[in-house]
Amino acid sequence: MGALAIPPAPLEFWYEFASPYSYIAAMRIDATAQKYGVDIHWRPFLLGLIFRQLGFADSPFNEQPLKRDYMWRDVQRCCECEGLPFVHPKPFPGRSLNAARVAFLGLEKGWGIEFSKAVYNAHFGQGKNLTDADMLKDLIAEISGGDAEHVWSEAMGPDNKAQLRSQTEHAANLGVFGAPTFIRNGELFWGNDRLELALTHSPKQI
Amino acid sequence: MGALAIPPAPLEFWYEFASPYSYIAAMRIDATAQKYGVDIHWRPFLLGLIFRQLGFADSPFNEQPLKRDYMWRDVQRCCECEGLPFVHPKPFPGRSLNAARVAFLGLEKGWGIEFSKAVYNAHFGQGKNLTDADMLKDLIAEISGGDAEHVWSEAMGPDNKAQLRSQTEHAANLGVFGAPTFIRNGELFWGNDRLELALTHSPKQI
Repeated sequence: MGALAIPPAPLEFWYEFASPYSYIAAMRIDATAQKYGVDIHWRPFLLGLIFRQLGFADSPFNEQPLKRDYMWRDVQRCCECEGLPFVHPKPFPGRSLNAARVAFLGLEKGWGIEFSKAVYNAHFGQGKNLTDADMLKDLIAEISGGDAEHVWSEAMGPDNKAQLRSQTEHAANLGVFGAPTFIRNGELFWGNDRLELALTHSPKQI
Repeated sequence: MGALAIPPAPLEFWYEFASPYSYIAAMRIDATAQKYGVDIHWRPFLLGLIFRQLGFADSPFNEQPLKRDYMWRDVQRCCECEGLPFVHPKPFPGRSLNAARVAFLGLEKGWGIEFSKAVYNAHFGQGKNLTDADMLKDLIAEISGGDAEHVWSEAMGPDNKAQLRSQTEHAANLGVFGAPTFIRNGELFWGNDRLELALTHSPKQI
């Protein structure tokens, strides 16, 4: 590579903790992106808010029993392909608000990626309740290196809540309607199975 | 390979002519399956009948403007990846009944695969109207080696219509809810992007 080589554009990884395909993407995105030399910007957001704006009463997965059952089988197979543990979490979708608030704060402080992966592993790998404050605090204590109660208070504080909401509004403005969503070079890619395309796709010609 | 090597299980390829992702799958399935030594059984069916049974008023793609616009961009990108021409056909979804009837008959007679690919190329590659009898008859004349009017009459006859309807009912009984669908070793895989998984997935342990 010459001195003038332009580094590949970074990729924004928009993820929702209750989303099974976001779980799979989160667990494989670092190794996959590394192959292509692409930097990943982790962007947790609240897909439930966007679903409400779009007029969905529930997760689209739950609307059609046949599709819902298929989806769980597909998730299980995709986890097997990636060597990931999988437990069907109930109820589904889980309430992701607390986890997303902590992850958002953790990303500012430098431990958000590791925390996000740990939450996914707890929820989809072990079937733990996504909204369980004790579970989340245990992960904070383990990963942040700080005082879990103090971090929790900051995460649940008005500033952090407002910033996560603002990031979710930003996602809606970008046209995000599902998770995971990858945005790169102004192009939106939806779904774990579009990660490779998002990492390799060339920008639109102007 | 030893004399006792068991050939890989065949794959049923369930496709709908109005489905853009079925187009992409149809154009790449032979070369992809050949890599894995898997035989493909082509199964045209009428997804519209199944959508009605499932209570969809329209193609699910059309229900949500944001998803619909994304889907067309995704189809365009996926066609670029495969080196396939793409024209957004209007109206969408096209009326696929006639094409499916001819394809069903053609598969019995040995020219159905080539005809199916030609219909996809005409509709999604060139934007031609899927239900245009003259267009379909031109393809029949070119591909079947028989008299187009005679083939057309047989395709639109009561026996062939009943058999296509019966094949669609069979699809519904198998749990097909979208297109393309691949069925192999009793497992259902939905979507062009699941083709490789369907070709390589091991059967369930009994």
